[in-house]
Amino acid sequence: MNPTACLLIIGNEVLSGRTRDANLQFLATRLGERGMPLREVRVIPDVPDTIIDTVNEVRQKFDHVFTTGGIGPTHDDITSECIARAFGVPWEVHEETRALMAADYASRTPPVQLNAARLRMATLPRGAVPIRNPATTAPGFSMGNVHVMAGVPRIMQAMFDALAPSLPRGEPVLSRAVHALGVYEGQIAAGLEAIQQRFAEIDIGSYPFYRADAPGGGGVALVAKGTEAAVLDAAAAAITEMLAGMGVAPIAGEPTTP
Amino acid sequence: MNPTACLLIIGNEVLSGRTRDANLQFLATRLGERGMPLREVRVIPDVPDTIIDTVNEVRQKFDHVFTTGGIGPTHDDITSECIARAFGVPWEVHEETRALMAADYASRTPPVQLNAARLRMATLPRGAVPIRNPATTAPGFSMGNVHVMAGVPRIMQAMFDALAPSLPRGEPVLSRAVHALGVYEGQIAAGLEAIQQRFAEIDIGSYPFYRADAPGGGGVALVAKGTEAAVLDAAAAAITEMLAGMGVAPIAGEPTTP
Repeated sequence: MNPTACLLIIGNEVLSGRTRDANLQFLATRLGERGMPLREVRVIPDVPDTIIDTVNEVRQKFDHVFTTGGIGPTHDDITSECIARAFGVPWEVHEETRALMAADYASRTPPVQLNAARLRMATLPRGAVPIRNPATTAPGFSMGNVHVMAGVPRIMQAMFDALAPSLPRGEPVLSRAVHALGVYEGQIAAGLEAIQQRFAEIDIGSYPFYRADAPGGGGVALVAKGTEAAVLDAAAAAITEMLAGMGVAPIAGEPTTP
Repeated sequence: MNPTACLLIIGNEVLSGRTRDANLQFLATRLGERGMPLREVRVIPDVPDTIIDTVNEVRQKFDHVFTTGGIGPTHDDITSECIARAFGVPWEVHEETRALMAADYASRTPPVQLNAARLRMATLPRGAVPIRNPATTAPGFSMGNVHVMAGVPRIMQAMFDALAPSLPRGEPVLSRAVHALGVYEGQIAAGLEAIQQRFAEIDIGSYPFYRADAPGGGGVALVAKGTEAAVLDAAAAAITEMLAGMGVAPIAGEPTTP
């Protein structure tokens, strides 16, 4: 069994529609490749009790929890303190991190002051392991199975890259996709279900797409996902054969909307 | 108190990273404008027990629940049946919907057959109210406070537009944003927190942005959200004054990355 992952996206700005999240797809893809598929995502607001309760629920339910957002220096950055409260440990200055940040800030031109707001970024739950990364000296951190990262995509990605080698790996989730134009889901549903039943150990999904200049205005992407390449190849062949029986040849990929 | 909303995004394709969700931001924005702010989003897989348990949890917790995905004709489209099971009611052909779909399909050139797979889209939880919409005769539906919509953005948006007039309205969530270049969160955190404390009835968020060609490589967006325009204006003025004290004038908006 592959280890499971959950992502918590923490931030009013995503719930209000101001910001379009860019972290889910990155993490989903990278975690799938490493064999730790994402099983659930929650987007929650900057409300302490909500963060604490949600963290405590999902860290029991999933093998690993990743959070994004809320670890900067401003008053709305409350993730780190909430993680400490969720684990019932003090939230205290992490001396090694403070020293690294102070040295970094002193080396800037002009030097940057490690003021009270910035010192919050060196304040971690007791027992947390900092995620050192090339993007910033203000680290993410792991607390047990909860991995706390920034919300800014560039920084989050640097933190994930730094964290990844310490995470367990499972069987990578592989996929095979068959795309066809001028085919509707309603035509192929019965045949596709029979193929899904024949290959019960993988997941077959059907995703319609639309393109004004395609015959019939679009088509379908039929996607098989699982951990065994040979089974996926056999399922993709069965899908292609089903389409051939309808006189349809697959195309190279999903056309982009012009 | 404004009514609250929760969004369930149902689909393996979002969790695997194959598809980047495009519905969250649309619904977050539209619901905020209508005064029914989104308080939580969950992305969950096409697994019956997960869908049923999640629906039953969030429909108690929030005033309205919106779901996207899983109402097409293929085997992986299981949302409708799961909603019936969550509410403990039969899942049965909705005669009026069947008749509308049959007439629509018969009118196509060439005519489309209302086969078993397509008939699933006319099969609804007993007591559900169809969401008729211009995009498709295969409807979404409302079951109590749960509103079930398609995952394809164009169809979801048509369903939401059709549904919206029947939803309660609250006080619209308004926002004021002040953008500044060459300012870092760590410089303004203390002043911003004081402003947040002064205007406790609104939410002030701080969002850094990055642009290689900007002075200092970027800046911050300071965003006040709430339902009272006068309070937001006063908070935005206080933020502008704080920046002026640092010799910084706001810019028109967030620069786009070149």
